[in-house]
Amino acid sequence: MPDKLGFIGLGIMGRPMALNLRRSGAELFVFARRAESLVPLTAAGAIACASPADVGYQADIVFTMVSDTSDVEQLLLGSSGVIEGVRPGAVVVDMSTISPAATRRIAARLGELGVEMLDAPVSGGERGAIDGTLSIMVGGSPEAFERVRPWFERMGRGILHIGESGAGQVCKACNQVVIGHTLAGVGEALLLARASGVDPARVREALLGGFAQSRVLEVHGRRMLQGDYAPGFKASLHQKDMRIVLETAAQIGIALPGAAVFAQYVNALVGRGLGELDSAAIHQVQIDMCGPREP
Amino acid sequence: MPDKLGFIGLGIMGRPMALNLRRSGAELFVFARRAESLVPLTAAGAIACASPADVGYQADIVFTMVSDTSDVEQLLLGSSGVIEGVRPGAVVVDMSTISPAATRRIAARLGELGVEMLDAPVSGGERGAIDGTLSIMVGGSPEAFERVRPWFERMGRGILHIGESGAGQVCKACNQVVIGHTLAGVGEALLLARASGVDPARVREALLGGFAQSRVLEVHGRRMLQGDYAPGFKASLHQKDMRIVLETAAQIGIALPGAAVFAQYVNALVGRGLGELDSAAIHQVQIDMCGPREP
Repeated sequence: MPDKLGFIGLGIMGRPMALNLRRSGAELFVFARRAESLVPLTAAGAIACASPADVGYQADIVFTMVSDTSDVEQLLLGSSGVIEGVRPGAVVVDMSTISPAATRRIAARLGELGVEMLDAPVSGGERGAIDGTLSIMVGGSPEAFERVRPWFERMGRGILHIGESGAGQVCKACNQVVIGHTLAGVGEALLLARASGVDPARVREALLGGFAQSRVLEVHGRRMLQGDYAPGFKASLHQKDMRIVLETAAQIGIALPGAAVFAQYVNALVGRGLGELDSAAIHQVQIDMCGPREP
Repeated sequence: MPDKLGFIGLGIMGRPMALNLRRSGAELFVFARRAESLVPLTAAGAIACASPADVGYQADIVFTMVSDTSDVEQLLLGSSGVIEGVRPGAVVVDMSTISPAATRRIAARLGELGVEMLDAPVSGGERGAIDGTLSIMVGGSPEAFERVRPWFERMGRGILHIGESGAGQVCKACNQVVIGHTLAGVGEALLLARASGVDPARVREALLGGFAQSRVLEVHGRRMLQGDYAPGFKASLHQKDMRIVLETAAQIGIALPGAAVFAQYVNALVGRGLGELDSAAIHQVQIDMCGPREP
């Protein structure tokens, strides 16, 4: 008998991901805190549930896609949470980006009930969610990964099993660290060019041909030159992710000074009320902190 | 009549660059502080000169390729320097990586004698110098650039005129900033994975498929995983370049906090006597500053 699927969290990312599952013909049970979020899903034939517990009761595999650690804890372990309905043998798949340590705690709690959990955060943004081309970084048992893989393939393209529970979240944290450093570096370099009276577009072009090449230099470097900060990936979310990174670093006892610098840039950007812009807009902070100068 | 060329500084980079010029059939006058450095060039038919002034007297275009700002100032403007022999209409082409501000000062001094100067720092390392595949970032007048371009094409592949005097050095500084940030970010991410008990090789693989992609993640990420820090590009030289970056930032009044973090990593590496390693070895500093832990 084919799997019955559940999906909780039908926002900018969750809605198109759930629709891609539903379009594959899966029986799909959905829940969202805002009733209007359910409409596109029920219109596509999904079945609305009254609570996360109800989704847990109906589904063999329950996906969650929400904003932060506390949301996932509440939906899975809280009052009327999935844990109150879910049956032994089910798999919970959290695709949000949250704390690796909290992920391991939640997985352990579900494990006591015979329920496996995968952490499966994504990258690729709204575009990737709509097109079904997300990168999916998965932590958890190989068996659970293999069981869910056909459904991951409806939502993404680069689907990698990274390691045990929490490893998907760690990988996503690493991803945000590398992107953050590279954004900071490209922005600082373009500032150095501009403030030296040198055409930053020419510098970007020169650097793309050598060892400084990166997708961030290609894509976000161009946006920095154009001042085009339509998201993309919102600064407020990158801020949340860097909080996870730096809390994790403190928990496991490592120093990440470069990641901390990027987090400060993002703090300044969000603090100016610009958290809805793409996180490449830290370049505006870099420019403004050095005062007005010739373009 | 074809140009007579001069080349001063026949070290790891300068020797193969000068040989590539000589192999094109150019008449080539050379000087190096260490007499033994002249041997491969004179064996190839170049003519040894007694001083930089003598090279300046003989050549229409004088290339310099040495270590630091003070070397270039000494060779060009010092006692028995190029300035004592060079004739109006000649072009001086400094391919070293030095201070943009000093470059502009030297160019202005030569300009008073009717001698144009190009700053033309390179990237691509010893391999690129031998193969004639260097990237060359050029500052100075378009006319001087066009005059020297055929010779640049003997030494490099990506040859870009960036802007006025100093612009080549600014571009090179930007290149070192971006590479530095990216090295720091890849290293911090691999440390985060490792210290979290997650396979850093798997993380690197996952990240290469998405927005975190960069040549540094590809090439130096692999070296960090393998602990293979044979240069490549020596940390002691990256340290010198970051000194130029941060001095320039202070001169023009901009803040580059991420570049400063990378410079500190390099300082720690060089301070441990490891300046001859590739600058990717900052990953060892990142690991060691957090103490011993499981691989």
